[in-house]
Amino acid sequence: MKPTLGVLAGGGALPAAVAAAARAQGRAVFLLAFEGQTDPEALVGFPHAWLRLGQMAEAFSHLRAAGVEEVCMIGPMRRPSFAELRPDRRAAQALARIGWRAFGDDGLLSAVVREIEAEGFRVIGAEDVLGGLLAPAGPIGRRRPSPQDDIDIARGVEVLRVLGAADIGQAVIVEHGVVLGVEAIEGTDGLIARCAGLRREAGGGVVVKIAKPGQERRVGLPTIGTRTVAAAAAAGFAGIAIEARRALVVDAAAVARAADASGVFVVGIVVR
Amino acid sequence: MKPTLGVLAGGGALPAAVAAAARAQGRAVFLLAFEGQTDPEALVGFPHAWLRLGQMAEAFSHLRAAGVEEVCMIGPMRRPSFAELRPDRRAAQALARIGWRAFGDDGLLSAVVREIEAEGFRVIGAEDVLGGLLAPAGPIGRRRPSPQDDIDIARGVEVLRVLGAADIGQAVIVEHGVVLGVEAIEGTDGLIARCAGLRREAGGGVVVKIAKPGQERRVGLPTIGTRTVAAAAAAGFAGIAIEARRALVVDAAAVARAADASGVFVVGIVVR
Repeated sequence: MKPTLGVLAGGGALPAAVAAAARAQGRAVFLLAFEGQTDPEALVGFPHAWLRLGQMAEAFSHLRAAGVEEVCMIGPMRRPSFAELRPDRRAAQALARIGWRAFGDDGLLSAVVREIEAEGFRVIGAEDVLGGLLAPAGPIGRRRPSPQDDIDIARGVEVLRVLGAADIGQAVIVEHGVVLGVEAIEGTDGLIARCAGLRREAGGGVVVKIAKPGQERRVGLPTIGTRTVAAAAAAGFAGIAIEARRALVVDAAAVARAADASGVFVVGIVVR
Repeated sequence: MKPTLGVLAGGGALPAAVAAAARAQGRAVFLLAFEGQTDPEALVGFPHAWLRLGQMAEAFSHLRAAGVEEVCMIGPMRRPSFAELRPDRRAAQALARIGWRAFGDDGLLSAVVREIEAEGFRVIGAEDVLGGLLAPAGPIGRRRPSPQDDIDIARGVEVLRVLGAADIGQAVIVEHGVVLGVEAIEGTDGLIARCAGLRREAGGGVVVKIAKPGQERRVGLPTIGTRTVAAAAAAGFAGIAIEARRALVVDAAAVARAADASGVFVVGIVVR
């Protein structure tokens, strides 16, 4: 039998989905919930403990006490302020080691993975538990990108490749060749909402979201779900392009239904 | 005597300042104002004509009829929608030639400069008329960046160098090592306003604005003024760093006063 799975729960419903899937596979699960990050509803029915993000020693004690050997970090984490973080001695040590890279997305996540592994845990991806999360190549739902959308997607990919080197965001919005917005700390939903007012034409604009070059495969993969589709539709954009086989789609069937109902496309693109 | 100066007037007060300075130097001036871009107040007292951005042939006729030989493009231009642009035959020809690059900032501006020069006009920078606009190295006003601000400025420069290759924006906001926002089409004031809500700490955060690598020297230089200072202060950021000798400061004395009055720093940094 597989060892107890520790779920380090970020925001949204995905941590609960991972925990439920692990339990359905006959595994025991234990969730670590983080103040200001985890949705309390995601914890219902699962053994769990609440911590501040900076309580690293406490986190490892909880995982060991629960018999955890494998850990899955899943769900978006908002960047805490230093005051919110209040690092304990173990976390301060980790921060000192991580140094500058703590401030890039991927640099931070990779470093956190190494810290967890240094404590003797294995880190696995949500895909390893849930399966079927990775975006397929091609359309999800009935709509397809127009030729102009394809051009905008190509421009978005080009821009994101350059951005990836700076380790900032994973998403851009491109409308008829013009980059309306670039994601940083506001997250993809925030990006979509703020770019709604920057559109110049009716009916155009594509949200493009791909993994960074050298992206850690197990944590921080670009993720979309029905909420992303609803946001894009509300903002009047034509659709969403995500990286096939490297982005996660939470409940692809529901995403396809939402896309069809709201008239936007969702497409998995192969990035070379 | 110098030939008539044609001012292609973007938004704000800078076109009027350039026109007034040229007139004070004994030059005749003629302003081209663009619908939805030029501030009508900038035209008061100067001979001018209103056009759509897409009326390129008309623009060249006006300039020739006014005896213009030198042209200065100054003031921010909002990206028009294709519908607003309605390119005439000459503009359509230019767009076809510019092609893809029309959608990057600097690619577009450089291409527009070449189109204007192909018609026999010389393109000059606002600095050539006004003088004293280029940011000095060092503080403007009394405040200086803290050691943490200096670290944030360095991170901002690093990120902007990478972004420059994608030809998108010229500004980022960095707070305690974290990139809060990256400028795209919303402009620097828009960036500052939207990032106010993303700050995590009190008293930190720096707006960093530098020219792109390979930036056309005569058009599209990064520019700040008292409005930028007011926006940064209202958003609670610590200060503004601009590239010494490649960014424009509109009315440095007023910027220094505004910075001192609101407690933010403004500093010219040397980017290597």
